[in-house]
Amino acid sequence: MNVLVDICVVPMGVGVSVSKYVVECEKIFAAAGLNHQMHSYGTNVEGDWDEVMAAIKLCHETVHGMGVPRIGTTIRLGTRTDREQSMQDKIDSVTSKMNH
Amino acid sequence: MNVLVDICVVPMGVGVSVSKYVVECEKIFAAAGLNHQMHSYGTNVEGDWDEVMAAIKLCHETVHGMGVPRIGTTIRLGTRTDREQSMQDKIDSVTSKMNH
Amino acid sequence: MNVLVDICVVPMGVGVSVSKYVVECEKIFAAAGLNHQMHSYGTNVEGDWDEVMAAIKLCHETVHGMGVPRIGTTIRLGTRTDREQSMQDKIDSVTSKMNH
Amino acid sequence: MNVLVDICVVPMGVGVSVSKYVVECEKIFAAAGLNHQMHSYGTNVEGDWDEVMAAIKLCHETVHGMGVPRIGTTIRLGTRTDREQSMQDKIDSVTSKMNH
Repeated sequence: MNVLVDICVVPMGVGVSVSKYVVECEKIFAAAGLNHQMHSYGTNVEGDWDEVMAAIKLCHETVHGMGVPRIGTTIRLGTRTDREQSMQDKIDSVTSKMNH
Repeated sequence: MNVLVDICVVPMGVGVSVSKYVVECEKIFAAAGLNHQMHSYGTNVEGDWDEVMAAIKLCHETVHGMGVPRIGTTIRLGTRTDREQSMQDKIDSVTSKMNH
Repeated sequence: MNVLVDICVVPMGVGVSVSKYVVECEKIFAAAGLNHQMHSYGTNVEGDWDEVMAAIKLCHETVHGMGVPRIGTTIRLGTRTDREQSMQDKIDSVTSKMNH
Repeated sequence: MNVLVDICVVPMGVGVSVSKYVVECEKIFAAAGLNHQMHSYGTNVEGDWDEVMAAIKLCHETVHGMGVPRIGTTIRLGTRTDREQSMQDKIDSVTSKMNH
């Protein structure tokens, strides 16, 4: 089962700057070979359910390992059985309708 | 690693009534032996990370199996290493501060 | 337009304990006369769109006023035009299907 | 009060294809003069709290007006008082740390 995820990891108890933790999560998605794209309030990740979820778990383990005592993550998670649809397909579906 | 999750499963392409799908997810959390509590806009589930995630995957597989072509789920997911904190602990922490 | 909201306010840069800020938000919902119900990972609030949104804005202003430099809130927000449905109706719709 | 929002509007009861509704929301953000950037699972919008919230309300009114009986929206919503930070600043903060 393929999944498209949008994830935002929020480290708590470590001050207001969280970018260094986001960097580590980006590296985890890259190392896992998952197609991923960061935006200003999270990261889109697509791939096999188990591989994506393993990467998310590794994000939590890694960020805790960096000394963060509490993490609050939010995830949007989409699956569909009617057809395949990539991250780019979703963008294209909207933009194609905007140009006329 | 223990996790506290708040999950809202939204079946798409099957009309406006989604309660029969929510029922199946509640049964999955119960059958998994996970402590869970439904509210008006989702369900709180707590337990071991892998067990909770396996139950969430089974929710998607089961709801697709009921004929739903597309699912959009949202999840809040909290872990902490500083101390154990149950679903009830979080409620108690707030209510104890409200009563004086 | 009526709305049912599920909101989770996450203060950042103030340590791991956030319950005192949640308490203030609960008081704001109560003072606004909005039907609301806290759970372990957020609060359900229902009412007129503008009144609910005004309360959410006041939550942010109040929590910043308590010295929190950064807030990351997540909101689920449901509206429907086909029929009225209260917070309790949603619970009843699921539980009625579970009891047989 | 400035706000950075990540919003995903999910029309329910109208089939699996939702891009035409997303298009209308994108037009609303553009017409409101708000800086906004779509990604594969939502749209980042930044601006004055009241202007952003007015645009979100107009999205719901417009999508209902197109015949959608039920909408389930998810929003991440960030405010901070310690400093100004644009959508692009957040991206830059992460990418600058990845390049060495």
